[in-house]
Amino acid sequence: MAYDINSLIEFLRFPSVSADKQFKPHVEACADWLIQRFKKAGLDAEIHPTGGNPVVLARNDRKPGRKTVLIYGHYDVQPPDPLELWQTPPFEPEIRDGRIFARGSSDNKGQIFAHLIGVEKSLQSRGDLPVNVIFLVEGEEETGSPHLEDFLRKHIAELTADIVAISDTRMVAPGVPTFSYGLRGMPCGEVRLTGPAMDLHSGIFGGSVANPATVLVQLLAKLHDSHGKVAVPGFYDRVKPVQSWEHERWAALPFDDDAWLRTTGAPALHGEEGFSNLERVWARPTAEINGLDSGYQGEGPKTVVPSRASAKLSFRLVPDQDPTELRGIISEFLAENCPPIVAIDVSFQNQGKPYLMDPGSLFGKAAQRALEKTFGRPVAFIREGGSIPIVQSFKDVLGSDALLVGLMLPDANAHSPNENFPIENFEKGIRLNQELLKEIAELK
Amino acid sequence: MAYDINSLIEFLRFPSVSADKQFKPHVEACADWLIQRFKKAGLDAEIHPTGGNPVVLARNDRKPGRKTVLIYGHYDVQPPDPLELWQTPPFEPEIRDGRIFARGSSDNKGQIFAHLIGVEKSLQSRGDLPVNVIFLVEGEEETGSPHLEDFLRKHIAELTADIVAISDTRMVAPGVPTFSYGLRGMPCGEVRLTGPAMDLHSGIFGGSVANPATVLVQLLAKLHDSHGKVAVPGFYDRVKPVQSWEHERWAALPFDDDAWLRTTGAPALHGEEGFSNLERVWARPTAEINGLDSGYQGEGPKTVVPSRASAKLSFRLVPDQDPTELRGIISEFLAENCPPIVAIDVSFQNQGKPYLMDPGSLFGKAAQRALEKTFGRPVAFIREGGSIPIVQSFKDVLGSDALLVGLMLPDANAHSPNENFPIENFEKGIRLNQELLKEIAELK
Repeated sequence: MAYDINSLIEFLRFPSVSADKQFKPHVEACADWLIQRFKKAGLDAEIHPTGGNPVVLARNDRKPGRKTVLIYGHYDVQPPDPLELWQTPPFEPEIRDGRIFARGSSDNKGQIFAHLIGVEKSLQSRGDLPVNVIFLVEGEEETGSPHLEDFLRKHIAELTADIVAISDTRMVAPGVPTFSYGLRGMPCGEVRLTGPAMDLHSGIFGGSVANPATVLVQLLAKLHDSHGKVAVPGFYDRVKPVQSWEHERWAALPFDDDAWLRTTGAPALHGEEGFSNLERVWARPTAEINGLDSGYQGEGPKTVVPSRASAKLSFRLVPDQDPTELRGIISEFLAENCPPIVAIDVSFQNQGKPYLMDPGSLFGKAAQRALEKTFGRPVAFIREGGSIPIVQSFKDVLGSDALLVGLMLPDANAHSPNENFPIENFEKGIRLNQELLKEIAELK
Repeated sequence: MAYDINSLIEFLRFPSVSADKQFKPHVEACADWLIQRFKKAGLDAEIHPTGGNPVVLARNDRKPGRKTVLIYGHYDVQPPDPLELWQTPPFEPEIRDGRIFARGSSDNKGQIFAHLIGVEKSLQSRGDLPVNVIFLVEGEEETGSPHLEDFLRKHIAELTADIVAISDTRMVAPGVPTFSYGLRGMPCGEVRLTGPAMDLHSGIFGGSVANPATVLVQLLAKLHDSHGKVAVPGFYDRVKPVQSWEHERWAALPFDDDAWLRTTGAPALHGEEGFSNLERVWARPTAEINGLDSGYQGEGPKTVVPSRASAKLSFRLVPDQDPTELRGIISEFLAENCPPIVAIDVSFQNQGKPYLMDPGSLFGKAAQRALEKTFGRPVAFIREGGSIPIVQSFKDVLGSDALLVGLMLPDANAHSPNENFPIENFEKGIRLNQELLKEIAELK
């Protein structure tokens, strides 16, 4: 292979999990490694400490008279749990069936690394790039980029760009170039209920005090109505309806509900009544329980009334919902619906705004041409159910739209065991980087 | 101290947890140790393998013409989790403030050991006991005594006794001799829901498939109505109302709802509407969630749609509810109320019948006299919210009633961190054993 696959494997070996502080040394080692790799590619690179994990910046010489492209990505990854479901260890990358399996292979190390190699190859063959490039690779995307907006504000002069390019979204199907013009946003957090001071004997005390696990299930059962709608008052108030041109585009997509269902392995598709599967994930907000924790979870019985019960919750938002407003609405709903027989604590860990851009803009069309040249097929225009919290911040702080040109397959298992990234998509990503910078350079 | 406190400490050092197979070697070592200790006390003792943990039998010479008393107890203990809430490690007994702190100190090692010492002292001082004694100390009480009823049937000839004596229940208040004439029964088990084949990215897939944690909370929220009653149809059909003499006796007990509340550390007492606190724990059945387990439970966020969600459940039953019948009713209720968007599996781990005896019987009165002599105060007659599954089996198989003469304090923390047993109660238990055997011997 003409490019440096071993470097990608090295990159993937770092367990750069941002959600859990015990991985912090690995996160920092990963950032250091990335700095060195950017330098090897021929860019100036420097590490920037933040209140959390460091930001890696890399760039070529900024020359006047040419466009500036900020390429954003992240070197942090999701926790690998549950470990026992991985066929090979999450941080020991293995190539099989044309894919590289590792935590972070698709989300986002493989994709950002394709851009790095694209730039490296262009510099090797032509000695320069057609545009000014700024790589901004952060280490806190998976925990909601809590320090990045501040970072943008502080470095606004050097980060100002004509456009942002991001490969951190999914392709609609293998081989189909995909342009994502919308993202869902999110607040996510935790609700914790406390009842007795300790786990109690369920015989001696059972029936005389509220069981926090019981109160929790009763409280969380109120999050949805019987039609699969989120039952929090005001939740849907700012939801923007899907436009007619979107309905048309989406109907024409090479998209198959059965294949989607097979990817999940669930017994059935299921969601908010009155909406198609694509609408549910791209254009409708959700309330999800990400985790439940209470009492005894080991082998066999332990008949206690638990002292505590907690749930991790996330709420995917769509334009024009506002995560700050929703946090308030949700907190109030949970507090109001929790009886005073337990103590309740609601906290939010991070959030991001939903995003929507015009794919028919000049930059949108440039991205479309680059995708078509790379893949040799017409481009699919989609929204994305996931969140990249910082995308709206690029718009707010730098005034730049973002081109979401993702390389992840529908069955990439991002955030799941056996995450993977096709070698072919890695190669296409290298080419896409080169075509995209060329197309942007040629814009008047 | 005239008795052997160091022996009790040795007994308590064994982590003889029956719920978790990894403790099996400790369970067996504990049984072996107990055999030797009974022999040292002057009894014949032998170990009996079962399909699970061994039964320890110890006895004096069986002489005709005198009563036979079977003293039942258990050497297995509850799991010690959550470990971090123990002030001193659960299997490193420590005496402070006149109490011995260790897992199993009250439930049941301290209590059964008081009977052992009582018999040892009688043999030392008088060379014989006034009755035939059979100690039956099992190792699976905390997992519902799954093999003990079979064991009783197989050894019926040698185990036949006039009466069973058990100290494994609670005193209504410190210093108040307490006779328990009723117990709750139980089935306990687990419900497991499975949705996607793996944890899914809650952005990419959230909204398109059912979240098993959401389905679980909706399902479990149906277990109770808004009045704190169990909403499973037929659940209360066989519940025997509290008798008027019981209401009178209970009203006269030195029993304080505020003290009860303080013991639990909960924000408030809470339970089934229309019943007093004592009725709720002694005479009303419950449905409790003992544990919840789903998705990500570590630090920070992990925004997944979990693949699985499960809950441990226990249902305390009162006379004349039947655990086998209730298992069927509950399984059916859960299956019928679970939508086909997830797979459901309901399993029960063990069960026990509720128990009720006549405290005014001859043996009941003998126990009452022994309690009064030991403590120098009138006896409180109570029921017990907990379960000793084998008590009804003694009745069914051996035809013997059980005298429940417990020595555990209300704040013993049985099944909780910092379980403890007062040295004073240990001493009283030794005396109680001697008085009880004497009173029974004198019955015509």
